[in-house]
Amino acid sequence: MSIKVIVAGFKGRMGSTAVDMIKNDSELELAALLDPFAAEKEIDGVPVFTDKNDLVGLDAEVWVDFTIPKVAYENTHFALENGFRPVVGTTGFTQEQIAELITLSADKKLGGLIAPNFAIGAVLLMEFAAKASKYFPDLEIIELHHDKKKDAPSGTAVKTAELIREARAYKKQGAADEEETLAGARGAEFDGFRIHSVRLPGLVAHQEVIFGAQGEGLTLRHDSYDRISFMSGVNLGIKEVVQREQLVYGLEQLL
Amino acid sequence: MSIKVIVAGFKGRMGSTAVDMIKNDSELELAALLDPFAAEKEIDGVPVFTDKNDLVGLDAEVWVDFTIPKVAYENTHFALENGFRPVVGTTGFTQEQIAELITLSADKKLGGLIAPNFAIGAVLLMEFAAKASKYFPDLEIIELHHDKKKDAPSGTAVKTAELIREARAYKKQGAADEEETLAGARGAEFDGFRIHSVRLPGLVAHQEVIFGAQGEGLTLRHDSYDRISFMSGVNLGIKEVVQREQLVYGLEQLL
Amino acid sequence: MSIKVIVAGFKGRMGSTAVDMIKNDSELELAALLDPFAAEKEIDGVPVFTDKNDLVGLDAEVWVDFTIPKVAYENTHFALENGFRPVVGTTGFTQEQIAELITLSADKKLGGLIAPNFAIGAVLLMEFAAKASKYFPDLEIIELHHDKKKDAPSGTAVKTAELIREARAYKKQGAADEEETLAGARGAEFDGFRIHSVRLPGLVAHQEVIFGAQGEGLTLRHDSYDRISFMSGVNLGIKEVVQREQLVYGLEQLL
Amino acid sequence: MSIKVIVAGFKGRMGSTAVDMIKNDSELELAALLDPFAAEKEIDGVPVFTDKNDLVGLDAEVWVDFTIPKVAYENTHFALENGFRPVVGTTGFTQEQIAELITLSADKKLGGLIAPNFAIGAVLLMEFAAKASKYFPDLEIIELHHDKKKDAPSGTAVKTAELIREARAYKKQGAADEEETLAGARGAEFDGFRIHSVRLPGLVAHQEVIFGAQGEGLTLRHDSYDRISFMSGVNLGIKEVVQREQLVYGLEQLL
Repeated sequence: MSIKVIVAGFKGRMGSTAVDMIKNDSELELAALLDPFAAEKEIDGVPVFTDKNDLVGLDAEVWVDFTIPKVAYENTHFALENGFRPVVGTTGFTQEQIAELITLSADKKLGGLIAPNFAIGAVLLMEFAAKASKYFPDLEIIELHHDKKKDAPSGTAVKTAELIREARAYKKQGAADEEETLAGARGAEFDGFRIHSVRLPGLVAHQEVIFGAQGEGLTLRHDSYDRISFMSGVNLGIKEVVQREQLVYGLEQLL
Repeated sequence: MSIKVIVAGFKGRMGSTAVDMIKNDSELELAALLDPFAAEKEIDGVPVFTDKNDLVGLDAEVWVDFTIPKVAYENTHFALENGFRPVVGTTGFTQEQIAELITLSADKKLGGLIAPNFAIGAVLLMEFAAKASKYFPDLEIIELHHDKKKDAPSGTAVKTAELIREARAYKKQGAADEEETLAGARGAEFDGFRIHSVRLPGLVAHQEVIFGAQGEGLTLRHDSYDRISFMSGVNLGIKEVVQREQLVYGLEQLL
Repeated sequence: MSIKVIVAGFKGRMGSTAVDMIKNDSELELAALLDPFAAEKEIDGVPVFTDKNDLVGLDAEVWVDFTIPKVAYENTHFALENGFRPVVGTTGFTQEQIAELITLSADKKLGGLIAPNFAIGAVLLMEFAAKASKYFPDLEIIELHHDKKKDAPSGTAVKTAELIREARAYKKQGAADEEETLAGARGAEFDGFRIHSVRLPGLVAHQEVIFGAQGEGLTLRHDSYDRISFMSGVNLGIKEVVQREQLVYGLEQLL
Repeated sequence: MSIKVIVAGFKGRMGSTAVDMIKNDSELELAALLDPFAAEKEIDGVPVFTDKNDLVGLDAEVWVDFTIPKVAYENTHFALENGFRPVVGTTGFTQEQIAELITLSADKKLGGLIAPNFAIGAVLLMEFAAKASKYFPDLEIIELHHDKKKDAPSGTAVKTAELIREARAYKKQGAADEEETLAGARGAEFDGFRIHSVRLPGLVAHQEVIFGAQGEGLTLRHDSYDRISFMSGVNLGIKEVVQREQLVYGLEQLL
């Protein structure tokens, strides 16, 4: 029997990609679509709603939420109160909100997932990099993005660096008498290691963590070409939350 | 206080590299050297022996063994009986011997390690590859070695492939109507995925596992340039076995 | 003053991408559009034609042709006879047709280009690989494509291999006593070197040529993500042919 | 018939590596060895000298010079005056000295080579990078070295950057409103493009030039593991100078 799924925010880019993914998986079934901007009453036989209160009592197991920060907390709360397991990609939750939702989910014995990043590959890369840094404390991060990107380093690189900082024993890398003959050549320093940001047309979003040790090297690389890559994480989330009895924060909790 | 270490087989290449590594780590101390081919009585103040029975009662915590398959089992048994925690890089143990040594170590409450591969990087690569294959069942292995190597694929590639087979749900990859216009182009098939062996002068020992999914890719690569890379695994082994009360098989058990 | 360009086959995928490219380059100007399937008389002020004969006497310097093999030869002939310099991406010309068109172009003192591949990056990779193979005769090709591709190796890999064969002194690579324990591991043999084909979802079209020699390695890699990459070659072709007095075959002739 | 070669500075590291290379090539033959620090009169049947003046009239075609800057100019002059074609790896020549030696070589109709870098792979990489930058003006350089290296970027990276500057039309890369949230992340700026220096244990000397354009990428990488890699350049130099009638500066002149 397939898992019945509600998609909130189905008019947005992530929401509509999620709808396509659900339609193409025979183990999943669309139960309802929700979006305040929807004009349709029904799409391909699936009922469409503009007000979440009309979903009370609907037969569905999972609530996929790609809405906006302003309503995501309230939506997740509503989903849990009404027996729908939330799988939420919207960001902007406070620590207090997350703690409260975890408690509520445990009371209701409902699984759930709030994830700032649904790219399984990116999440695995971070986990592997953090683990490897325990044994190989010498490392550098190179992240590569398209040349329209404003900020450097990327948010993913900083997140990766933070996870490495937690796992690795602090070490100031490089030669003690190291000197830059061109300023910036050695990249940005973070906890004693370096981060380099490459920006070129044609690139999308890529990250490499390079570890070096006496006589060996280990390189971990993730390439992200398209937002469709997030859907394998959403898919995994839907199938995992129906088997759990408490909400978790972060896709890594399910891997 | 430093950990006192005996090195058995100290005249061999791995054994002598281990001696150097121990000398260069202030947390470790050489307690004795053993090798049937030794002519010296003492090296830099460290006593040298040709018969292991002369080591009974010696003040040491760890027995590092890089001898030969014929004597390694007997040595490991002897080490445990005499209160030395074995860290063994010699291969050729049977399943029965390993099981018996684990039981003996548990009785004696002594940690120990028997490892066919001491390269932490290679072991991490295998572990990461197996885990990633659960979420990304589409993958190929490319291993690259110097052009004097006779066998293809490499033993490490086959071991990696076997670990992936255990973790991954079987999938026959590639297009159903795929056709080789030059025989062998698609590499060797193993459990539905492919292994490619590159052989070139200048290369040493390298392995890449490439995962692909809708809109993303994940690449894991290990480069091995020198046997000195095995020493970080031996070092880790020595420091871990003194904190444990049972022998384990495989460096991955300590990571 | 901008270069006036006719686009033949403007309804096709390559033709319409070329139209966009021309519109976005202030040095170029669309003079006319031609396609037998066009219903429009005019698009954004540019006249549209369904019969090439209506273009006789038109004020234009370059004829970009992305039509079909059946008509491309006749179109190119027509362009040269009417003073338009052809830039042709359609394939299927015979050696005789190409020779005849070169002679005709020289008579008319008109530049021109017929190119089976407009990706400058791919053409540069081939040129670099052929040159490097003179000094580094040990090499292997790894080409990587999406997993819907039927043939292996790719046409680009075979073309690259042929250019290397012309430049490189023949050498049978690998150990003399090399042995495959899994059939196909060493890839496809071509002129004494090896070609490996990787097929994974998420990949588009990629090629790597790896050279190895005592103590060093050289790796050349081209990544193609989108057909838009062909447009830099078309753009270069348009700007080059107006400065030449004879047609050439192959984009490499202009690099 | 083999080419007879004198090696000046044969006691040094490069000189002795050159001797080994010559011995292992059946097309080459050692004619004499020169070094002021030599105590031997003969090595394996090859006469040994400490004063270059004793070599006047010796039967040899090529003079390989791995001495020191102080004597290299004088040695090269001496070689040309005495009919030996110089292949010189010593650095420190002034522009005037090089010009004078070229004139002298042309008068004598003798080939010759003075090369600051004998690594064919590194020289090819620079040449390819410069050429590619004409068509792909968006690029970044990543150079990777062992973590004992003091200066960043490496001399090779700066030389590569200078050759690119000569070939490429100036372009300030990256987003106009680009911002570093961690200083140095975007690397060192050089002529509008960026250079990044990675320093890790286990690495030797590596360089990557990455080009990006709409829908494609081109990556050129050179890995140098051992000084033995310079010998293919010396070997090529010896075989080329006997076929030429004038000295050249830079290995690239022979490629």
